Amino acid sequence: MSRKRYNVAVVGATGAVGTEMLRVLAQRRFPIKGLHLLASQNSKGRKIRFGSKIYPVEPLQAQSFDGMDVALFSAGASRSLEFAPEAVKRGAIVVDNSSAFRMAPDVPLVIPEVNSHALLQHRGIIANPNCSTIILLVALAPLHRAARIKRIIVATYQSVSGAGAKAMFQLYDETKRALRQCGVRPPRRLLKAGRGSSEFGVKPKLKGRWGLGLSPLPKQIAFNVIPQVDVFLENRYTKEEMKMVNETRKILEEPQLAVTSTCVRVPVFLAHSEAAWIETEHPLSVEEASRLLQEAPGVKLVDSPKSGTYPLPVDAGGQDKVYVGRLRQDESIANGLALWVSGDNLRKGAATNAVQIAELLIKTP
Amino acid sequence: MSRKRYNVAVVGATGAVGTEMLRVLAQRRFPIKGLHLLASQNSKGRKIRFGSKIYPVEPLQAQSFDGMDVALFSAGASRSLEFAPEAVKRGAIVVDNSSAFRMAPDVPLVIPEVNSHALLQHRGIIANPNCSTIILLVALAPLHRAARIKRIIVATYQSVSGAGAKAMFQLYDETKRALRQCGVRPPRRLLKAGRGSSEFGVKPKLKGRWGLGLSPLPKQIAFNVIPQVDVFLENRYTKEEMKMVNETRKILEEPQLAVTSTCVRVPVFLAHSEAAWIETEHPLSVEEASRLLQEAPGVKLVDSPKSGTYPLPVDAGGQDKVYVGRLRQDESIANGLALWVSGDNLRKGAATNAVQIAELLIKTP
Repeated sequence: MSRKRYNVAVVGATGAVGTEMLRVLAQRRFPIKGLHLLASQNSKGRKIRFGSKIYPVEPLQAQSFDGMDVALFSAGASRSLEFAPEAVKRGAIVVDNSSAFRMAPDVPLVIPEVNSHALLQHRGIIANPNCSTIILLVALAPLHRAARIKRIIVATYQSVSGAGAKAMFQLYDETKRALRQCGVRPPRRLLKAGRGSSEFGVKPKLKGRWGLGLSPLPKQIAFNVIPQVDVFLENRYTKEEMKMVNETRKILEEPQLAVTSTCVRVPVFLAHSEAAWIETEHPLSVEEASRLLQEAPGVKLVDSPKSGTYPLPVDAGGQDKVYVGRLRQDESIANGLALWVSGDNLRKGAATNAVQIAELLIKTP
Repeated sequence: MSRKRYNVAVVGATGAVGTEMLRVLAQRRFPIKGLHLLASQNSKGRKIRFGSKIYPVEPLQAQSFDGMDVALFSAGASRSLEFAPEAVKRGAIVVDNSSAFRMAPDVPLVIPEVNSHALLQHRGIIANPNCSTIILLVALAPLHRAARIKRIIVATYQSVSGAGAKAMFQLYDETKRALRQCGVRPPRRLLKAGRGSSEFGVKPKLKGRWGLGLSPLPKQIAFNVIPQVDVFLENRYTKEEMKMVNETRKILEEPQLAVTSTCVRVPVFLAHSEAAWIETEHPLSVEEASRLLQEAPGVKLVDSPKSGTYPLPVDAGGQDKVYVGRLRQDESIANGLALWVSGDNLRKGAATNAVQIAELLIKTP
């Protein structure tokens, strides 16, 4: 092991993913020499404790990267487009969590457990895939290697933390309001009912929109699900859905792979879940898939349905492994397999994956 | 229109679906002469207002059906198995919302908008399909008629009311507890953050199980999703998932139709949503599918994604129509189409469908 220590910049250090990046850097004892915490003007004056020291949050500017070895970006695509090349120019290697460079042909898009070899071609910037893509492919890559996946169908159940800390606040605030005042008739009274059917009707639709003009999710999320993550494109898919298609193809190096997805936001704070169906070229039994997943890096197989054991977001949240379960033959097609995954979108879906990439970079400079 | 009026028994009158059945009977002005409200001993002594009258809730027994014309059952499969034949013996026609008779070859399984012709063969009992199946097929039947569906893949987002009033109480109570005490760090503090990464970590996993020994859902549902609806079968699917497969085949009269599903409970009080993909024998454009759905009975097409218009459970709850949207070509396969539906599981998914069947019965005796 190298005893060398590195100067690390974290861009977007006060955001949901940035905060988690700091946590992961500390937990994994990344060999840090100097630490620059960078954020927008909004965070001016803040201080963040890391280990035993207190660091100021500095405004993001090109000079911030002078002397930095590694820069972890998670401040949105426009910041990355502007500042990642500046960081590279100043000698830093960038691991970028935004979508800015993911599909650029000269930028590796890396999940360490899946395609660490792609790192070797980097030219200063490495892209971290979308959270939903990472969580799906950690589970699917070992199956693809064994039986060659021909088609993937995936429906997501994405937590609000994927839309940032403000979306978590939206869920929190709306839930409180819905329980308190906005048309929720306490089910307690329902159970006693007996006073006419009009008693019934728990439909907590909030009257107004969430206040403060901040509402980061496009609709009410409390006691609701929203079949929209990110914006809509011309083909009627959302950007999130197409990210899953395009990033999967790039990471698995299968430009023609058939992939379709529906991305849905659910009222969960942390951890995304996904229902997936795959069709493979070669037959793959549930037993064989279980064996592969049992041995797969980054996977925790949680699959004893009869004893109530399957992946849940409340269990996967806070963990670095992707929880995989509900494995079963999809009898609606030849060589079909269905499964269910849950993974922490802020950790393995973002921060942990980025730090793992940084670890690989310092091992193989 | 017949001026005749009918004696109606509602079995399970105090449950989530039974209560809604009374509401629907009143709203649709079903021509009621006498009304018998039947339930288990637990509901002894309760009274329910219907229209301008107060009715006592009577204990369920075979004699309850003497003189009844129609009996709407929603008190679980074992009650139906025991009492539906008794009701038929006494001259009533039974519309059964349980799973007891759905797959019996001599029992029609009916969604009025889809296969009302099947009613003609009834021998006293007509089965109401599972809520998830009804909501899916109201949307898919017109597409099947036009282009012949070869395969259906569906992931559900099912509300807790599908598991009864007690499950609604579980969601309500767990949510309150989670917000109040059980590990939820208010995201309000997250937004101010800046006091170290340990501040971060909203993972509201409840410490104990939901109290009172009533917990009707197998896991925590607040801020969580549960990939289990009903019990697990030998093939690793849940009973709910296989209901969707088998009932779809029976209703569409396609015994070999390829269907696969993953059924998931989400923290929503009312209305189920479903992400579905279909593969058709003949090509079906988004425009053609839209036109068919626009004209389809029981469907409300809600599909202008760019202006933020798509089906949501908080909108579909309380409505009788199935909301359909997010129509788009599934480019991962020839003749593929993806869509998203939301429908009120207690109304169209149960009570409304049952009352619609009763209406057909009195029209075509």
